[in-house]
Amino acid sequence: MSKPPATASEADPTGLDTEIAMLFPEVDSDVARRLIGSAMHAFAERGYHATTTRHISEGAGLSPAALYVHFKSKEAALYAVSRSGHLGVLDAIRAAADEESTPPDRMRAVVRAFTTWHVRYHTACRVAQYEIAALTEEHYAEIADIRRDTEQFVRREIQAGVDSGDFTVPAVATAARAILSMGIDVARWYQPGRSTDPDLLATQYAELAASMLGVRPGR
Amino acid sequence: MSKPPATASEADPTGLDTEIAMLFPEVDSDVARRLIGSAMHAFAERGYHATTTRHISEGAGLSPAALYVHFKSKEAALYAVSRSGHLGVLDAIRAAADEESTPPDRMRAVVRAFTTWHVRYHTACRVAQYEIAALTEEHYAEIADIRRDTEQFVRREIQAGVDSGDFTVPAVATAARAILSMGIDVARWYQPGRSTDPDLLATQYAELAASMLGVRPGR
Repeated sequence: MSKPPATASEADPTGLDTEIAMLFPEVDSDVARRLIGSAMHAFAERGYHATTTRHISEGAGLSPAALYVHFKSKEAALYAVSRSGHLGVLDAIRAAADEESTPPDRMRAVVRAFTTWHVRYHTACRVAQYEIAALTEEHYAEIADIRRDTEQFVRREIQAGVDSGDFTVPAVATAARAILSMGIDVARWYQPGRSTDPDLLATQYAELAASMLGVRPGR
Repeated sequence: MSKPPATASEADPTGLDTEIAMLFPEVDSDVARRLIGSAMHAFAERGYHATTTRHISEGAGLSPAALYVHFKSKEAALYAVSRSGHLGVLDAIRAAADEESTPPDRMRAVVRAFTTWHVRYHTACRVAQYEIAALTEEHYAEIADIRRDTEQFVRREIQAGVDSGDFTVPAVATAARAILSMGIDVARWYQPGRSTDPDLLATQYAELAASMLGVRPGR
């Protein structure tokens, strides 16, 4: 078995561009987008600490110091990716839940959206999850708050289903952890073009989560 | 919120030593153990590519070239950690399953052992999971084979439960993925002394997995 490409951009050169355009809709400068893309690719490929500002600038086809036109530092680029990724997925699962009414349907929608997010933005998610320790204290605290909001949101959704009698799971907080882990870990193992179809995966994960929470068939 | 320590060794200086003694029982040289520990710590802390052989040697309190007395290269140290970690967890879940007879009890034992492993060896697991792309083609292929064996083992256990009528899950391969992801992701989020009690977590994960597979209460 040969090694899979480390990031989407090797397998599909346009995949990363799409990720960036969707993750950073407010960035309208082509140069800034190229820098973010180059930073995400480098952080995912070699890790934050082994990436230099020169790698990022040159990976974007720019002069060595070009990063500083758009970002104060290498850490600022990591923070931008982490913040957009974490806020984006929280918005996505809230919006998905709001489309449904019963606790089982809301939870299925949350898991589908969470799984789809980690497939679609797997490069950004890898960086956001595995390089988070490199953020400054202040930036780390901000990301930790968003993560806590995300976890609290899922816990409240589970608790609502327990209260309504739709779910029977006794360990609400641990179940929230498990459901989030299933989705987060997708960013680690997902290989574009070589893994399960994303829509099928998202639907299967939604049913597995419902079953884990004790939803009876047909609910 | 302040940043948690990146690895067990900062929070508990003796924790890493225990990990190493248990992961590498065949290594009886104190110097070799210190080198493996230093390598694991550095890879987990700053990433493989940002770690130099000098970091590893000096982290073990040795002269810059000391690594080469025990390892051919930096990659050889990564391979040693990855191989021990991956083989160890496969042995652990096989042994756990063999203690039980019915498919639900076997699966609970597998999930308990898998979860406990990722708590106990969370530093080694982070390195083994997140730095795997840095292995040589040959070493990567060997680790990929062990991972495939692990996944196949879990799939067969689930299929046995479906065949016996104990499990009702329709998507066997995806369920195996989800159960492995729950456990693997523990190595990412687990913080010694700040997270759920490991035994409670392992038991709760075992019940969540059983429920996910459609085991009826009491089975």
